[in-house]
Amino acid sequence: MTPTATTSDTLLAALRDGLGPRHVLTEPEDLAPYLIETRKLFTGSAVAVLKPASTGEVSFAVRACTQAGLAVVPLGGNTGLTGGGIPQGGVVLSLERMTRLRAVDPVDATITVEAGMILQDVQEAAEAAGMLFPLSYASRGSARIGGGISTNAGGIAVLAYGNARDLVLGLEVVLADGRVWNGLRALRKDNAGYDLKQLFIGSEGTLGIVTAAVLRLFPKTRSTGVAFVGLASARAALDLFVDLRGRLDRDLTAFEYLPPFALDLVLRHVPGTVPPLSGAHGAYALIEAASARPEADMQGALESALGDALAAGTVSDAVIGASGAQNDALWRLREGIPEAQTREGASIKHDVSVPLSRLPEFLERAGAACLAALPELRPCGFGHFGDGNIHFNLSQPVGMPAADFLGQWGRFNRIVHDIVHELGGSIAAEHGVGLIKRAELARYGDPVGLDLMRKLKDALDPEHRLNPGKVIAEAAHEPGSAT
Amino acid sequence: MTPTATTSDTLLAALRDGLGPRHVLTEPEDLAPYLIETRKLFTGSAVAVLKPASTGEVSFAVRACTQAGLAVVPLGGNTGLTGGGIPQGGVVLSLERMTRLRAVDPVDATITVEAGMILQDVQEAAEAAGMLFPLSYASRGSARIGGGISTNAGGIAVLAYGNARDLVLGLEVVLADGRVWNGLRALRKDNAGYDLKQLFIGSEGTLGIVTAAVLRLFPKTRSTGVAFVGLASARAALDLFVDLRGRLDRDLTAFEYLPPFALDLVLRHVPGTVPPLSGAHGAYALIEAASARPEADMQGALESALGDALAAGTVSDAVIGASGAQNDALWRLREGIPEAQTREGASIKHDVSVPLSRLPEFLERAGAACLAALPELRPCGFGHFGDGNIHFNLSQPVGMPAADFLGQWGRFNRIVHDIVHELGGSIAAEHGVGLIKRAELARYGDPVGLDLMRKLKDALDPEHRLNPGKVIAEAAHEPGSAT
Repeated sequence: MTPTATTSDTLLAALRDGLGPRHVLTEPEDLAPYLIETRKLFTGSAVAVLKPASTGEVSFAVRACTQAGLAVVPLGGNTGLTGGGIPQGGVVLSLERMTRLRAVDPVDATITVEAGMILQDVQEAAEAAGMLFPLSYASRGSARIGGGISTNAGGIAVLAYGNARDLVLGLEVVLADGRVWNGLRALRKDNAGYDLKQLFIGSEGTLGIVTAAVLRLFPKTRSTGVAFVGLASARAALDLFVDLRGRLDRDLTAFEYLPPFALDLVLRHVPGTVPPLSGAHGAYALIEAASARPEADMQGALESALGDALAAGTVSDAVIGASGAQNDALWRLREGIPEAQTREGASIKHDVSVPLSRLPEFLERAGAACLAALPELRPCGFGHFGDGNIHFNLSQPVGMPAADFLGQWGRFNRIVHDIVHELGGSIAAEHGVGLIKRAELARYGDPVGLDLMRKLKDALDPEHRLNPGKVIAEAAHEPGSAT
Repeated sequence: MTPTATTSDTLLAALRDGLGPRHVLTEPEDLAPYLIETRKLFTGSAVAVLKPASTGEVSFAVRACTQAGLAVVPLGGNTGLTGGGIPQGGVVLSLERMTRLRAVDPVDATITVEAGMILQDVQEAAEAAGMLFPLSYASRGSARIGGGISTNAGGIAVLAYGNARDLVLGLEVVLADGRVWNGLRALRKDNAGYDLKQLFIGSEGTLGIVTAAVLRLFPKTRSTGVAFVGLASARAALDLFVDLRGRLDRDLTAFEYLPPFALDLVLRHVPGTVPPLSGAHGAYALIEAASARPEADMQGALESALGDALAAGTVSDAVIGASGAQNDALWRLREGIPEAQTREGASIKHDVSVPLSRLPEFLERAGAACLAALPELRPCGFGHFGDGNIHFNLSQPVGMPAADFLGQWGRFNRIVHDIVHELGGSIAAEHGVGLIKRAELARYGDPVGLDLMRKLKDALDPEHRLNPGKVIAEAAHEPGSAT
C-alpha cells in the first residue's frame, strides 16, 4: 500500500519543496481529521495530507505522487456520506486552500469558482451579483463546491434547477498523470466533440480532480411560497404532486415528503418546532413555489392550488407561510429530520430513487418488508419526493443496543435495495457510491454498464491512482500498489 | 476499406439471413439516397444499407459487421448538416424501422421511444398524453430522435428546456462489439456509478449506437406570447435579453436574433410574409414566452415588459401577436431565414456559440472581418441569441458564381472561427462536428481534451468500427481497415 521509506522520504521532500512545508501534513494528529468522515462509519490511513493552493500545485502534486506509485484521494469539505473521501493509503489532496472566486458575470449568468470554495460562499457571491446559484443542501456551510460537482450532489432545489451536473457549464480538471484539462467554457451550447466534463461530474474523483468550474446562475427569486400539507397517504401525495406540477409548472421548486413518524421525531427533538396542522394525517408534504417574476405571487398561487386540492379531497389540511419567518419554520420541519433521527438513536440509511409513479408502492412495500424482518423498528422514508428520491432510513427499535441494530445494515440493504432494483430505481440517488455502496453497485449494476465503467477507469487512470477502490470495486489492481 | 469479396459475400448472406433479405440493400440505386446528405456537401460509399427492426437485430448486425472488419455508420433521418451520417466504406445501419413508442407515462413525465421514431411523432405522442416534449427544430418532420440524441441537437426550445442532452433520462445502446447496454432508466436522480449515457449523447455514433431512450416530458403549454421587436443594435438586443430574463424568469422560452439583411431576405423570398414593423431598425428579435400555468397570460407579460423597454429606449418598436395565427406569422419571419437564404444564392455557414456577453462583439467583429476579406458578401448572423448560438452565415456576393464563392469556405472558416476561439466560444454549437468540422476541432480543440477524446474512442471502440473518421480525425487507425 505504501512505497518504501526511501521513496516516501524523497517524495515528501519534493512535495514540501513544491507546496511549502506547512502544506504537507504528516503528523498523526494533523492527519486525523482527514481520515474520518461525518458519520464515523469509515476511518482511513494516509502517508500525508497535501494542501495545494493553485491548479499548478495540484498538477505538480498529482504528478509527483502518481509517478511514485502513491494513490491520491481528493477531498473537499469532508461532508460526504459514503466514505468517498476517505483514503486507504496514499495521500489526501485537500482542495481547502483553493477558495478563489475567479469571476462572476451577471450578463453571462455564470460564476467561475475554484473547487475549494464553500458552497455557501458560492451562493453568496452569486447573490451579491444579483443572481441565484440554486444548488443547496444541509452541509452548505462547510461543503466545498468541488465535492458537490464530483459527487453530482442533489439537495433541495433539484426539482426546478436539476442536480449539480445540470449547473456545470465548464470544468478545469487535473488528470491522473498531472496534466490539466482546461474545459472552463461558459457556453450553453457546445458540441465540439465529446462532452468531457460529464466524465468528471459524479465520478467521485476517480477519473480526475476538479480544480475549478464555470457554473450557471439564474435570476434571483423575488417571490416564494411555502406550504405544509396533511394527506391521507403517499398515494395522495403523488396525486397532489402531479396536480401541482401541472398548475405551477416550473414555479414548483420543492415537493418534500414526510411520514408521520418523521414529523413526530422533529417535534420531539428539534427545539422551537411546533405542530403545523391541528390533526394527525397519514402523510405530509412540504411544498415550495418560487419565481423571479416581479409580479409573481407564489403564496397566492399555492393558496389557489391547495384550495382546489382541499375541495377535491386530495389534501386533508394545509397551512401556507404568511412571512419569510413562517416559511423558514415550515422548512425546519423537513430539514430537522436528520438531526431528530440522530437524537432518537441509531439508524440504517438508504439514499434511493424510483420512478415517480412507483414512489407510493416503494414506500409501502419497503416499509412492510422491513417491519416483517424486525417488527420493532421504525421506518422513516422521507425526502425529495418530487425527484423520486427517498432517504429510506430505519430508526432502531427502542431499547435495542445501537451496535446490535447497526450490525444488521447489510440485511436491510438487501431488503430495501431488492425492492428498489425491482422497481427500476437506483440504489445511489444523490449521495453517490464511495466505499459504502461499491459492493451494492457491483451487485445491482448492469454487467455491461459495469464493464464500461471499468473501461473508463482504465482509459483515464490506467494505474488506478485516483481515489482507488471508490465507486468501482478494484479487481486486478490493488489500490496504491506500486506498478 | 472493404473486406475481400468472399468475406463480403459470406457476411451479406449472414445479414440477409438475420435481418431478412429485403432489409439488406446492396443495389446502387437502393444505396444512393443513403450516401448523400441534405446540403449535398458530401457523398459517401457503402457495401450495404442494413435496416434492423429491433435492438436484437442491431446487436446482431453490429457484431457481424465489426467482427468482419467492416465499419458501421448509424443513420437516423439523414437531416444532419455535418456529414456525420455519410459512410466512407463499410455499411450504413439505418434505424428507420425502429419507430416504436415503447411507453409514455404522464405521471413519471417520461416517454420511452426507439431511435428511429420521427421527432414530430415523439412530440405528438407526448401531446396525446397531455404533456410536452420540447425538443424541436426545422427538420422535425423527418429527423429521427436517435439522431437528435446522438448529435445533442439544440433547436428552438433550448433556452427553457436545454439541449437534447438535458432531455434524456435513460438510453439503450449497442456497443461496438454488439453488446447491448441497458441504461433505460426513468430517474431524476441516479448516482450509481458513472453517468454512462453522457458518453453516447452528442458523440455522433462514434462510441455506440443509440437504439432507444427514456425522455423527459413537461406540462403542456397553456399560454404563449410572441413578440417581434426592432432594436438599435445587437448590443441593445443583449440589454433587452438580460432585462427579459430577469422579468420573465423561466417563462422566457425563446430569444432569436435577426440582422436587417435576414429580415429583408425573408420578406423578399418567403411567400406570405409581411413587414412586422413600420420602420427599419438596426437589429430585430423574435421573443417567445410560454407557461403551463392555467392563469398565465404570456401576451400580457410581454406587453408589460416590452412597454417598459420601449419607455426606457432599449427597444425601438415592437409588435405582439394577438392570436395563434399571428404568433405563427411572426415565427415564420425567423424560421424562413434558411429557405430565404438558399433562394438568394450560395452561402457559407458557421454554427458557433460564444458567451452571451460577447455576442455583440462577435457579430460586429466577425461581420467586419468578413467584409474586409470580401466587401461584396452579405453577412447574415442570426439565430439562438439567448443560447449564445449564432448561425453566422455569409450570403454570396450578387453575381459571383456560386462555386467561386463556396471555394472560399475554408478561408472564411478561418476568419470566423479565429474570432470565436478568441472569445472563448465553440466552433460547433448545435449541429456537431461530423466530417465538416473535424479538422477545425483538431485545430482549435484543447490538446489535452483531444487526447481524452481519443482515449475514449480507443476504450469503447478499439478497432474504430463505429462511424470512423467522424468527430475525431483518424490517425494510426485507418477507418474500416481489417485489424
